[in-house]
Amino acid sequence: MHIAVVGCGQLSRMLALAGLPMGFKFSFINDTGIQAAPCVQGLGKVIPWQTGQSFEALYEALEEPDCITVEKEQLDINLVKALEALCPVRPTSRAVAACQNRFHEKQLLEMVGVPSAPYTYSTPAIDTLQTLDLPLVAKSCCDGYDGKNQWVLNNLEDAENFDADIAKGTEFIIEKKIPFTKEVSQVSVRGLHGDINHYPLTENQHSQGILTKSIAPARDIEPKMADLAQKYISNILNELDYVGVLAMECFVVGEQLLVNELAPRVHNSGHWTQAGNITSQFENHLRAISGLSLGNTKISGVNGMVNLIGTSKPPVDRLTEKTSLHWYNKEVRPGRKLGHVNFTANDYEPLLNEMDVFKGV
Amino acid sequence: MHIAVVGCGQLSRMLALAGLPMGFKFSFINDTGIQAAPCVQGLGKVIPWQTGQSFEALYEALEEPDCITVEKEQLDINLVKALEALCPVRPTSRAVAACQNRFHEKQLLEMVGVPSAPYTYSTPAIDTLQTLDLPLVAKSCCDGYDGKNQWVLNNLEDAENFDADIAKGTEFIIEKKIPFTKEVSQVSVRGLHGDINHYPLTENQHSQGILTKSIAPARDIEPKMADLAQKYISNILNELDYVGVLAMECFVVGEQLLVNELAPRVHNSGHWTQAGNITSQFENHLRAISGLSLGNTKISGVNGMVNLIGTSKPPVDRLTEKTSLHWYNKEVRPGRKLGHVNFTANDYEPLLNEMDVFKGV
Repeated sequence: MHIAVVGCGQLSRMLALAGLPMGFKFSFINDTGIQAAPCVQGLGKVIPWQTGQSFEALYEALEEPDCITVEKEQLDINLVKALEALCPVRPTSRAVAACQNRFHEKQLLEMVGVPSAPYTYSTPAIDTLQTLDLPLVAKSCCDGYDGKNQWVLNNLEDAENFDADIAKGTEFIIEKKIPFTKEVSQVSVRGLHGDINHYPLTENQHSQGILTKSIAPARDIEPKMADLAQKYISNILNELDYVGVLAMECFVVGEQLLVNELAPRVHNSGHWTQAGNITSQFENHLRAISGLSLGNTKISGVNGMVNLIGTSKPPVDRLTEKTSLHWYNKEVRPGRKLGHVNFTANDYEPLLNEMDVFKGV
Repeated sequence: MHIAVVGCGQLSRMLALAGLPMGFKFSFINDTGIQAAPCVQGLGKVIPWQTGQSFEALYEALEEPDCITVEKEQLDINLVKALEALCPVRPTSRAVAACQNRFHEKQLLEMVGVPSAPYTYSTPAIDTLQTLDLPLVAKSCCDGYDGKNQWVLNNLEDAENFDADIAKGTEFIIEKKIPFTKEVSQVSVRGLHGDINHYPLTENQHSQGILTKSIAPARDIEPKMADLAQKYISNILNELDYVGVLAMECFVVGEQLLVNELAPRVHNSGHWTQAGNITSQFENHLRAISGLSLGNTKISGVNGMVNLIGTSKPPVDRLTEKTSLHWYNKEVRPGRKLGHVNFTANDYEPLLNEMDVFKGV
């Protein structure tokens, strides 16, 4: 089985490291315009490609993979569409397109009856105030990840400034700012024949829009809330006839679950699945897209993950019995995700104590 | 951290796949005289070396690793000794030398008070009969793995034939053939500072001298037998000031545990540690030899492993929720270990049912 991945980042790296033991072969499409691809070095052929270049030549240079997948949604959707004519692409261009634009994502959620924050689409912020109360968050429809391209509108002046500043031609949505009690994510995998496995609902903490830590299963969550998350993501997966791992980020607001964002791929909030007596999201994504049986997603105990952001070198000296390290081989830059540490424990208290050791690493 | 491994087989492959996520760099010494090294392709530089060639040039070609380890004991011990002068080699040449010769191994076991089968050293089989009763097993001191270079002596005629046939200059031991009830192995890891973690005692089944399956923890074993195994291997590890993973294969004979063989490395009977909520033997070996904290070796549930022997391609279509595949990328040959499958379950019955699916694959 030969899998090509659009992208050369840490998600591609971890997909390959999960697939090599199974005898899978990998290649990678580098669409960044930057030559270096240190994350996937040695793990397979890297083929550079940029908008305007031939799709057929790319497919040939990849050595005709059996299946193509993506590690990101911010990409040239025409690439995905063109590759679909040459071999199976999982998830499909429809799924990727829906997740790469916040307005399309909102429309998809509405269609399958999944609640999200009330919003307006590309309307002046001042007009929005007629239907939605302050505070609001304006988000560009595209290129918004890790909190980028978002504007919080706390008062009338913010709304006026936003209207004056927003670049013409930029699509955006303006959402009601949600006073959430918790951010959680549901990572699930759907196989080629429609079978779905759910990882437990994960609790996420962010700092300046970047995920810093995850805890699974999420604490203080009623079973019916976890069931709701599984129902919502199943609706989405089935509507898209989705194959592979999908991540659904949500706000918990009282007894409500509002979906914030979808990612058509393995997701940072699922990295903890590499530890624990289960099949990781990476192996499960590969199993799904290659038509194999899905692996177990039911955990015992509790798990955690801490992102290593801007950390200058692999902090191997802090590893303990129940921690494991994943380092991405990326060039070190402040604010950049350079690796993560996974934690397993019998209960939350020892888990959190272990996670604290990596605070500020 | 840059680790060089003597050997390019599946154990080197799995060491590298365990270490790459931690940001480790690998290189491999190919001492086989065969150019191809498919198991470790892409995972690091492969440097060919043969007896008589320069050790310093080898060390330089490897790009001066921080630590060197071995994936096998059947190697030129002068290589290990020479490399020891250039950088830390873990385990040491003393440990490797003790395990590469059955007579030295026996002497080591006697020294630390660990019982093994009664034996004589390089004596005519006929003479041996004065001290040991038939049946006997004659084993060459070196190059005996997977049941190779062993002769079972069931009667006087076998003994006379052995005496007539055995090549002059071959060292051997003649052991009492042990009427064991079970074959088990203890895989343990000792850190740079003398700390020891034990995996649970593993039950092994062989066919024609080759390991076919493992079950852990071993069934029908009294806790005091498991304690004994830990005591014995600790004696050996401490005597050798051993750093890394050591495997100790034993016969269970009634309430006795007799050590059959030592392997100064990660071992096939420890492959199941890749599944389950623990640190694998591969990661633990790397943690030990690089001076890091050891990882957890305490499992919940039960685990199993089935070797894929002569299997023509990765049997991905038989994977289920609780099985995972490790394929070595080796050229397919009948009787060759080409991969293995790991199994996890809550109890032995479902475990054995799952393992049966791979019978004869």
